[in-house]
Amino acid sequence: MKTSNAIEQTQDMTNGVYVGQLMNVIGSIEADTEYAKFQWRATNQWIDGELSRSRIKGFFAGNAEDSTRKEAFTLYADEPPIASGQNRAPNSMEYLLHALATCLTGTLVNHAAVRGIEIEAVESSYTGDMDVRGLFGLADDVRKGFSKVTVDMRVKSRASVEELTEMALFSPVYDVISNSLPVKFTLTTY
Amino acid sequence: MKTSNAIEQTQDMTNGVYVGQLMNVIGSIEADTEYAKFQWRATNQWIDGELSRSRIKGFFAGNAEDSTRKEAFTLYADEPPIASGQNRAPNSMEYLLHALATCLTGTLVNHAAVRGIEIEAVESSYTGDMDVRGLFGLADDVRKGFSKVTVDMRVKSRASVEELTEMALFSPVYDVISNSLPVKFTLTTY
Repeated sequence: MKTSNAIEQTQDMTNGVYVGQLMNVIGSIEADTEYAKFQWRATNQWIDGELSRSRIKGFFAGNAEDSTRKEAFTLYADEPPIASGQNRAPNSMEYLLHALATCLTGTLVNHAAVRGIEIEAVESSYTGDMDVRGLFGLADDVRKGFSKVTVDMRVKSRASVEELTEMALFSPVYDVISNSLPVKFTLTTY
Repeated sequence: MKTSNAIEQTQDMTNGVYVGQLMNVIGSIEADTEYAKFQWRATNQWIDGELSRSRIKGFFAGNAEDSTRKEAFTLYADEPPIASGQNRAPNSMEYLLHALATCLTGTLVNHAAVRGIEIEAVESSYTGDMDVRGLFGLADDVRKGFSKVTVDMRVKSRASVEELTEMALFSPVYDVISNSLPVKFTLTTY
């Protein structure tokens, strides 16, 4: 006989996600749309040349300022020598690809957990092409950002390619980038 | 009398940028537009829950595969508990803001170096608002990504707000994001 169903549900994990906790968040949003208004933040300080440092800690979510993060995250960015830097950290465009990669992966895993679909492994590769004449102001008809991003995602799961793709493409960073430029997204299973 | 003008020029620094080296890159692009075709890359592997890890190393730039980076950069992303994670790293949306911050800062510093404008300090703050009903698939009319991004940049320089703003907005990540959603950009000097 189950006497502690709520606790068991909270501790039920699929894909490393606490599904009960996630369902509680979804329930809170369904009861109060204000609960869904999140704000993420960063501050940045220039160090020298192409090197700068960001500090990331506070955010607003679920009608409250966060109290779970005890310490700030510190991130650096630099450029390789051909882009005026010294290779002390990844550059901004690589961070953009990292944001896309982690968002597609996390979104897929999260949606699959809600649906009870097991994911055994996810690996993905990203390329972003750009013509730096835009950045340097050498050609007005060349855009400054990526002209094209290519995503190749490989998922170990029994779910269909169609359903896995549908779930991954709920990704917020995919939404931001794919509404700005062409993103070629390919997902395969094994 | 100067007998080693080329070497002196290469070692001339403005804002921590080797201006001579940067002018060589610009000269190479002006002589051969293919030189401007850069490709950045990342690979990512899911670990568990919302945690995943990216590896960043190789890129193509200046008609060649890079040979300057000896080791790969490793980056993680996770989520706070309200977004199914365990706060083991910043999340994807925060990395997106970090990409924007470092790109605006680096682009400003680089363009200023080319123009011989000294920058003494740059600090900036970023917020990104989103309604997570889009991400969770709870409202078809709510977009999944940010609805709005706000940038507040403070620059210590004698240059005008107008010229500093013009230079910062050559940023490729700003181009990607601002062509997808409203970005409120404010720059002040001190």
